[in-house]
Amino acid sequence: MPPSCLRIGLIGLGIVGSEVATRLLQHREAYRRRTGVDLVLERVLVRDPVRPRRVALPAGMLTARPEDLLDDPQLEVVVEVAGGEEPARTYMERAIRSGKHVVTANKVVMARHGPALLELAGRANVDLYFEAAVGGGIPLISTFKVDLLANQIERVVAVINGTTNFVLGRMADAGLGLDAALAEARAAGYAEADPSEDVDGWDAAAKLAIMASVAFLARVHPDCVYREGIRGVDPIDFRYARELGYEVKLLALAARRDDSLEARVHPVLVPHGHPLASVQGARNAVYVEGDLVGQVLLQGEGAGGRPTASSVVGDLLDLAASVRRRVEVRSAPRFDDELTVLPMDEVRTRAYFRCRVVDGPGVLAAIFSIFGEEGVSIASAIQKESDGRWAEFVVTTHPASDAALRRTRERVSRLQVVHSVGSFLRVL
Amino acid sequence: MPPSCLRIGLIGLGIVGSEVATRLLQHREAYRRRTGVDLVLERVLVRDPVRPRRVALPAGMLTARPEDLLDDPQLEVVVEVAGGEEPARTYMERAIRSGKHVVTANKVVMARHGPALLELAGRANVDLYFEAAVGGGIPLISTFKVDLLANQIERVVAVINGTTNFVLGRMADAGLGLDAALAEARAAGYAEADPSEDVDGWDAAAKLAIMASVAFLARVHPDCVYREGIRGVDPIDFRYARELGYEVKLLALAARRDDSLEARVHPVLVPHGHPLASVQGARNAVYVEGDLVGQVLLQGEGAGGRPTASSVVGDLLDLAASVRRRVEVRSAPRFDDELTVLPMDEVRTRAYFRCRVVDGPGVLAAIFSIFGEEGVSIASAIQKESDGRWAEFVVTTHPASDAALRRTRERVSRLQVVHSVGSFLRVL
Repeated sequence: MPPSCLRIGLIGLGIVGSEVATRLLQHREAYRRRTGVDLVLERVLVRDPVRPRRVALPAGMLTARPEDLLDDPQLEVVVEVAGGEEPARTYMERAIRSGKHVVTANKVVMARHGPALLELAGRANVDLYFEAAVGGGIPLISTFKVDLLANQIERVVAVINGTTNFVLGRMADAGLGLDAALAEARAAGYAEADPSEDVDGWDAAAKLAIMASVAFLARVHPDCVYREGIRGVDPIDFRYARELGYEVKLLALAARRDDSLEARVHPVLVPHGHPLASVQGARNAVYVEGDLVGQVLLQGEGAGGRPTASSVVGDLLDLAASVRRRVEVRSAPRFDDELTVLPMDEVRTRAYFRCRVVDGPGVLAAIFSIFGEEGVSIASAIQKESDGRWAEFVVTTHPASDAALRRTRERVSRLQVVHSVGSFLRVL
Repeated sequence: MPPSCLRIGLIGLGIVGSEVATRLLQHREAYRRRTGVDLVLERVLVRDPVRPRRVALPAGMLTARPEDLLDDPQLEVVVEVAGGEEPARTYMERAIRSGKHVVTANKVVMARHGPALLELAGRANVDLYFEAAVGGGIPLISTFKVDLLANQIERVVAVINGTTNFVLGRMADAGLGLDAALAEARAAGYAEADPSEDVDGWDAAAKLAIMASVAFLARVHPDCVYREGIRGVDPIDFRYARELGYEVKLLALAARRDDSLEARVHPVLVPHGHPLASVQGARNAVYVEGDLVGQVLLQGEGAGGRPTASSVVGDLLDLAASVRRRVEVRSAPRFDDELTVLPMDEVRTRAYFRCRVVDGPGVLAAIFSIFGEEGVSIASAIQKESDGRWAEFVVTTHPASDAALRRTRERVSRLQVVHSVGSFLRVL
């Protein structure tokens, strides 16, 4: 007699949780027909069970006591969509240890504790799903876990933070400064009151850690991801970038380099024609290179209640299918402990420098001799707008080590004939 | 004691088969580590076992006798990459009936017999995988089957034939005629000597039938797909389309309309800014709308030995995972027999007309009165280049039934003041 029922405990009833609960209640019969398994929402853990809610739940479903879910042997799966590191991580660990499957949308927990929780789930013979933790409804985790598994993944490059992509787009198109663009993003519902999680690259670094862990089967902690936000990008850079044939994007990049990984988040000049250059507004897109598949691009809405609920419920339906298929053994991926993250100094990349320099003889020779001494070769150099005394001078380089590029920046900025190095950005 | 081995028989050693065989032999140990299952290539069925091959296989592996694979009880899975309807369909059916799993890249068989074979596989308690049958290495089938399963899919719109996308791109960018563009496609390896499979939309219609079957769980036979190729697109249309803000693409579209489906392949004017408008060269891209996820775009290399092998071996690794997980029950999807394809006459769409008309008074009134009588309302109208006697006249419409649009075309072309309706294309 096959188990025909999957009893669900839901943790969190915010924007994502409400969509998940609504969907499970309204589509129960349709999902039962589609999967052969009855998905039954049994309990919902919230902080305040008497607060009015947007979603109408049957009486008695809400509880504020974690043990009503975690210690209920009837529940086969816990769906965690409350967010935040604690108590979510502890709840997930307790659920796994008591033999429950877990489906989560929790970026922070999966970025910091994903490999450990996956291994714990393998030992407990349960599944841990987290498609919704990165990129909203875009099928990323399953693409790495299943579809591209035949490949050696070479590179993952992503526009994975919608807020900064919206902000950079407004800076580029409307010539706004960072603060004005952020105000627009806030008005459009794309930015928080405190934007530093997005603007300083923390969100993108956490998402990159999760993607890199799955794509390369490596333990990539977000603290190992090199991280620079978008505060160093000046409105003028968008104009110069476009003249040179680039868009400025905040990218999350992970790549295999022999036995190491690159893992970094920073602004990048992306050439026109590259699929990531045309990712508009708050959209997310992930560009993957594999040794068999070549190049694949996955694009969609990277956040929001409904796209995220699409991934959460998709994970639940995949779990339901595994129940119908009577899966007996659920094992963890095997992480490669040899694969560690390369220090940013050793990463080789191209760069863009914008400097204010004295408009006089010998200046460029002085600058270029530093580039030469550091072994950094110039790809293009343009002298811009002089006001008679100061001229703006823009250089792009061929690939060099990031250490050499930063030493070059430092030495150039100390030259007497240089007013300042206004921007230093990497080039894809 | 879990089965730790998956013994594989391969049918076909062409471009895809060679890549699959090479990969299985060279990555056997890596895949064993990744999945915990040993993927063992045992036999390869070819027409001529003594012909020299690009891939070096162990002696005795090649055979010309189908029964060496199909009747060998040791083989647990048959990989079919020979292509063509027969004998491939018969081999697949025999393999399934004798309890073997099947992984195939066969577009024709899956388009014409997919639902029947899937149901047969369900009854035989084996899996039938076909990710490689559509879109090369792009993960489409699994996205519909798993990731977007929580959604009601509303619409699938795809650039799914690389040859015609390359050809239309060259016609648009270089002003070439169809034959010259096809010659370039042939030289670049993107077109066959006889291009009608691509140019007349047969390939796209078969791929659409497969995608629609999976996305909507409907039985969509390629003969039910409305099909128009690119022969009716004139080089001048690309110029007018761009002036109006569109690119011309051969699209495959499937959409839910109440209890019916639209399923059609024809040239379409795609507005600039739509993600499908910028799909370049021989790339494929599939744009999906779901009621939860919103819009998702999947893009990549839609053909070629290595991308296709990525999907074939990906399917094998997923099968290996199911063996390791000791899956017991393998069931077919439940197709919705109520969901049938709407006749093209009843499809509502926008259209683009290009007519040569007498350059004189009363002409436009005569034309517009026909549009009015047919209930087709005009979205834009531009009179172009007159040589004194004939003028070119371009109209785009608001949505109307395709029957009304075609009656309008027919009646306009019979007007005395109209030389010809040079082009009639749909608009997205």
